[in-house]
Amino acid sequence: MSCNRIIITAGEPAGIGPDLVLSLVHNNHPHQLVICADKNMLQQRALHLGIDVALLDYDAKQAPSPQRRGTLTVEHIPMAKEAVIGQLNEANGHYVLKTLERAAQGCMNDEFAAIVTGPVHKGVINRAGVAFSGHTEFFAEQSNTPMVVMMLATEGLRVALVTTHIPLAYVSKAVTKERIEQIMQILHKDMVTKFALPHPRIYVCGLNPHAGEDGCLGQEEIETITPTLNKLREQGMDIIGPLPADTIFNHKYLQDADVILGMYHDQVLPVLKYKGFGSSVNITLGLPFIRTSVDHGTALDLAGTGNADTGSFQTALSHAIELVEKKQ
Amino acid sequence: MSCNRIIITAGEPAGIGPDLVLSLVHNNHPHQLVICADKNMLQQRALHLGIDVALLDYDAKQAPSPQRRGTLTVEHIPMAKEAVIGQLNEANGHYVLKTLERAAQGCMNDEFAAIVTGPVHKGVINRAGVAFSGHTEFFAEQSNTPMVVMMLATEGLRVALVTTHIPLAYVSKAVTKERIEQIMQILHKDMVTKFALPHPRIYVCGLNPHAGEDGCLGQEEIETITPTLNKLREQGMDIIGPLPADTIFNHKYLQDADVILGMYHDQVLPVLKYKGFGSSVNITLGLPFIRTSVDHGTALDLAGTGNADTGSFQTALSHAIELVEKKQ
Repeated sequence: MSCNRIIITAGEPAGIGPDLVLSLVHNNHPHQLVICADKNMLQQRALHLGIDVALLDYDAKQAPSPQRRGTLTVEHIPMAKEAVIGQLNEANGHYVLKTLERAAQGCMNDEFAAIVTGPVHKGVINRAGVAFSGHTEFFAEQSNTPMVVMMLATEGLRVALVTTHIPLAYVSKAVTKERIEQIMQILHKDMVTKFALPHPRIYVCGLNPHAGEDGCLGQEEIETITPTLNKLREQGMDIIGPLPADTIFNHKYLQDADVILGMYHDQVLPVLKYKGFGSSVNITLGLPFIRTSVDHGTALDLAGTGNADTGSFQTALSHAIELVEKKQ
Repeated sequence: MSCNRIIITAGEPAGIGPDLVLSLVHNNHPHQLVICADKNMLQQRALHLGIDVALLDYDAKQAPSPQRRGTLTVEHIPMAKEAVIGQLNEANGHYVLKTLERAAQGCMNDEFAAIVTGPVHKGVINRAGVAFSGHTEFFAEQSNTPMVVMMLATEGLRVALVTTHIPLAYVSKAVTKERIEQIMQILHKDMVTKFALPHPRIYVCGLNPHAGEDGCLGQEEIETITPTLNKLREQGMDIIGPLPADTIFNHKYLQDADVILGMYHDQVLPVLKYKGFGSSVNITLGLPFIRTSVDHGTALDLAGTGNADTGSFQTALSHAIELVEKKQ
């Protein structure tokens, strides 16, 4: 197995992102992990947390070398203002975006094999004057990707979404034949190419309670979802559904499904996060590179306390590594 | 502890309902269990399943006596046509309703302490010419109850719903201040009176992803849910929320919550059923009597095979007994 470079963005400097990346110092890793953040901020956070770390400057010209315990390799992006733990400062909004930009560009030119992202704060970036709706959309724009798919995964369960961060009242209209088809194509392709599953079995939820109960509880299954799934079946996809969301997580189905596609956010993420118990990962499908992320926010109140739970971050990193190794 | 009478409706005669009630024959029970069904149909199903049972005629005039192993007490309601296992027959639609009517009337006049319902098939009752949208609505009508609340429960988790069996596209408009308030009043009252929890702590979901994220993902939390919860707090209710549905099932919250109120069906039932793993129960709140039910359908393909899972039925019965004993 060759040594790859993975870039890790530390995210919002007032939050727990720096704590999470500093937790990597305690172990050796077979790949080179490059932290994209302000080096001085990391040094101060390490001091604050009582972590002994040698911060090494990242050098793109050198061949990747495995990460050694006690060190962290840093791609230094300077902040505008010193970070105060737990206090958002919009002066550093642009800095956060620069770390993401650097990471995306490095993936686009094959300098890095994957990006793992720490948590950012959407509000403070927007207050800095940049319209920013999330990592996923940002990376899609950076890579000229017209559509991406949000997947979350934990041990024994992967879920993907047809619609993501929109008000519930808009969901029914957003679930169109075109959208379902595009999402399914991306999902299927990435299951094959990124997850090395040549014949992925995709379980699909209905939109309405009881998947519409033969039209008694809504028409979308009959008019939109089923015809689209049938079309995709004719193209060779292995699809089960639409099934009611409250039976699709039956343990029998979970053993059989490679991924479950939900129509909207709160239909499938509560089960995923309940099952994941702090160890779930957000994976963006459809991008020309591998990107995984923590599934939580900046947790300002826990920053610098040493009490941040690293479970989701560790899961995000291990998934990125798994996908990088599968790709080889 | 005194011996109470509990009436159990066997539901659709072509489905697994008769199999479920016959499974009660294997044990003694401290209360008198009265099966409301066609006695001949039960006898035939017992023969088919190879179950040795003495079917005793129910006599309302005698004092309740504990259920003895090897026997079942039956309130005989005659069917119109003989039941064929696995084959729905609309000729028996009215029979099913008569069993429910008998059970409800018996609860209204204190003949029975609770109803446990086996699964019915809505379609076949409607095809029999009766507009029937479910047990819950039927019992509400029978008892002149203007509003009821659907609760599902399993070990360690209770969830209740603001809206139930309506298309997803209608949910946002159905979640009004008035509805939330009425549902919360019923929920709170029944937690106190039926569950013997003098100060119930109620966790409430938002409607939108991330509970609206401060209005970025929908206004219902700000305009409708939060003001209503604040009003109820002023009346003394112990309420947490609105919280995002994908974090509310955090194990820390579950330990603290007596019940979680979801805004709609697929927001909370997938987690409940995933956690319940075939052992969850449907409880109707707001009725003047105790009513629990299986959380599944008629499973026509499993009827008469001996393979029907009795988990949910056993849970429904044990919850009914628990509520009856708490009431005393």
